[in-house]
Amino acid sequence: MTKIVLAELLTIGDEILYGQIVDTNSQWMSVELSKAGIKVIRKTTVGDQEDEIMTAFAEAEKRADIVLITGGLGPTNDDLTKPCLAKYFNCELKIHEEALAEVTEFFKSRGRELTEVNRQQAALPVCCEKVTNVIGTAPGMWFERNGKVFVSMPGVPHEMKRMMSDIVIPKLRKTFSPPTIHHKVIRTIGLGESFLAEKIADWEKALPPHIKLAYLPGLGEVKLRLTSIGDSLPALEAEANMLTEKLKERVGQFIYGYGEDPIEVAVGNLLREKKLTLAVAESCTGGYLSHLITSVPGSSDYFLGSMVPYAYEIKMRQLGVKPETLEKNGAVSEPTIIEMANLVRAKFNTDIGVATSGIAGPGGATPEKPVGTVWIAYSDKHQTVTRKLQLSKDRQINIKAASIAALNLIRLNVPKV
Amino acid sequence: MTKIVLAELLTIGDEILYGQIVDTNSQWMSVELSKAGIKVIRKTTVGDQEDEIMTAFAEAEKRADIVLITGGLGPTNDDLTKPCLAKYFNCELKIHEEALAEVTEFFKSRGRELTEVNRQQAALPVCCEKVTNVIGTAPGMWFERNGKVFVSMPGVPHEMKRMMSDIVIPKLRKTFSPPTIHHKVIRTIGLGESFLAEKIADWEKALPPHIKLAYLPGLGEVKLRLTSIGDSLPALEAEANMLTEKLKERVGQFIYGYGEDPIEVAVGNLLREKKLTLAVAESCTGGYLSHLITSVPGSSDYFLGSMVPYAYEIKMRQLGVKPETLEKNGAVSEPTIIEMANLVRAKFNTDIGVATSGIAGPGGATPEKPVGTVWIAYSDKHQTVTRKLQLSKDRQINIKAASIAALNLIRLNVPKV
Repeated sequence: MTKIVLAELLTIGDEILYGQIVDTNSQWMSVELSKAGIKVIRKTTVGDQEDEIMTAFAEAEKRADIVLITGGLGPTNDDLTKPCLAKYFNCELKIHEEALAEVTEFFKSRGRELTEVNRQQAALPVCCEKVTNVIGTAPGMWFERNGKVFVSMPGVPHEMKRMMSDIVIPKLRKTFSPPTIHHKVIRTIGLGESFLAEKIADWEKALPPHIKLAYLPGLGEVKLRLTSIGDSLPALEAEANMLTEKLKERVGQFIYGYGEDPIEVAVGNLLREKKLTLAVAESCTGGYLSHLITSVPGSSDYFLGSMVPYAYEIKMRQLGVKPETLEKNGAVSEPTIIEMANLVRAKFNTDIGVATSGIAGPGGATPEKPVGTVWIAYSDKHQTVTRKLQLSKDRQINIKAASIAALNLIRLNVPKV
Repeated sequence: MTKIVLAELLTIGDEILYGQIVDTNSQWMSVELSKAGIKVIRKTTVGDQEDEIMTAFAEAEKRADIVLITGGLGPTNDDLTKPCLAKYFNCELKIHEEALAEVTEFFKSRGRELTEVNRQQAALPVCCEKVTNVIGTAPGMWFERNGKVFVSMPGVPHEMKRMMSDIVIPKLRKTFSPPTIHHKVIRTIGLGESFLAEKIADWEKALPPHIKLAYLPGLGEVKLRLTSIGDSLPALEAEANMLTEKLKERVGQFIYGYGEDPIEVAVGNLLREKKLTLAVAESCTGGYLSHLITSVPGSSDYFLGSMVPYAYEIKMRQLGVKPETLEKNGAVSEPTIIEMANLVRAKFNTDIGVATSGIAGPGGATPEKPVGTVWIAYSDKHQTVTRKLQLSKDRQINIKAASIAALNLIRLNVPKV
């Protein structure tokens, strides 16, 4: 079997050491490298200080085949990654003509002028290969020496991700030919991690030794990842599919999809396929449910619109909830949520109406309705379905978990035909 | 001046290297240590392998006064932190009577029996001091040797946080008497990092050597952080405030706040203070602007609601945009956005109406209106203000950047009185 390829992740930036930013980059990078068959053996974060950075370079080079660096590429004086790399690889910084053309075009297309500070972003160590940044101004850099590779990328997450996916990972695969690793992600919703684990315990126990299972719990959902190592990709794929079929016999109703697509994509595909339209009335989720739905490209095929009737008077005047319903039951109640779902469906003239109302917190709780109490409803011409959730004490979690539960309610109730 | 006290954070666990868990512990620890005047110089993550762990201990001891270790304290065989620490400090593991009593009580109070595996959690290296874990089963450990301190804590966030706050931080303060560190974060919006840097170059150059400036760019905004080291907190605060006043002379109109509060909080405070109400009509932002506004606790004081008129027919029928306006100019146009802002203000009966409409992408573009073209508008009884944005090719960035720009439009145009 091929040699295991080792990578070290190096993050540069005082803002991470001081805790002003959470480093989410390195998790994403770990996952992508793992998919590519490259093993991450260490993650290191150092501050914006030359000696710290130089030491980290030297230490990482000893341990790993690949050193992936993020951060410290901004145009300002506290950004030291580039001069440090030039020094470490012993070559000068010089304006890179293609990089200069790209950064000039970047500013021009936004109707802004190139300043001297921006111009310096096109200066690169002459011994590196430029890695194009199609959505930002700081180019990445690729260095090779004695069979080891250093890659420097911006710390801005979307710029780094684009660069990794489009250029860095394919180039690393070509350079190192790591072994074949196959991942299959099975996405489940509506069952907690430990309940899921119990239901599939025997299936898990019977997995062959070259296949590993990981539970990846998220908000309201649990992803299962099967990772297999071998030589033949088609054989690994076939084996994973066969195992998935067996899994479906146990927990099929909780599986909403596979791979990268979250629940909002799965629900969108379902609606498009069945040619159904959707409208939403969201109170406690405050726009987040609509945001999830519309974050999917092409969602205008099935999503017509929504209302966020945050205030009582808007619930009545704009959406049309009966004053007596609100007075008698309050906004967070089954009668109100039923009216909301039916009304938004009628007003927006869609096949499906969905509504949310709850106590997101921290204020607004009563002894009967503590923070985290949420009602959701689904309505179509055949039925109206409600569900009461008891979520957490945390406002942000409640907003997100209620939105995801509402999407799952659509998935479970969309007409079969 | 007191000597600067240096800390290194060491996280142990394969699950972090593989990207199965985001390490949020180290950010929290950084913030708390920084508040206590202890400087974090490095963060390291290694996997569950003895040689990796032992090397990391030795490297950290060379660099830092304090080594704070999290993770690898579970009861299973893949948890190696405790045996490695015993080996590193050259002493045997032995059942600690007090720890045994505590773990026994922990299980008893939950009606569960103590297994042999759990009993082993009370085995500690004899050369360490136990750090009590009041909410979990794995005790922490405090080691001292040659003026350096190693502390091992569980990786479970709430257990670690409780231990740090109650015991570890107070004990570190007592042991090291660290100097005072003061951070001031100044939040700006509407000016790119390089433009901001140019405008304040002379101010930055004149900063005294004990004060460092960092640029922390985010989507549509840039935070400036002044970090100063000294003996007297009031003196450092006064100095930072004085420097901020000078900064305001140069870029005052771009500063929207200080510290932790994002633009949606700043705008919320402004509206609450001026007793103004807000409604939103968002097309291309699809609910995200409403979500930002309602993510702030207490936003119901000023936010009455919103509409997401995603489809043409909803723009006309529900919001009331004139068909001829849409026909003549399209949805992404100045005449349409003006109508949308005015209409939502009138319909929802608020002081302010805000609207967004644009091509979020990837579909929907025309030669005149490429992906990233967005119109936003602000309306109150005195004026209607519009702005055209040319954003990126990325749907998610466009949704978020347009929402933030709309919030900034409110900030800039809210009536002065």
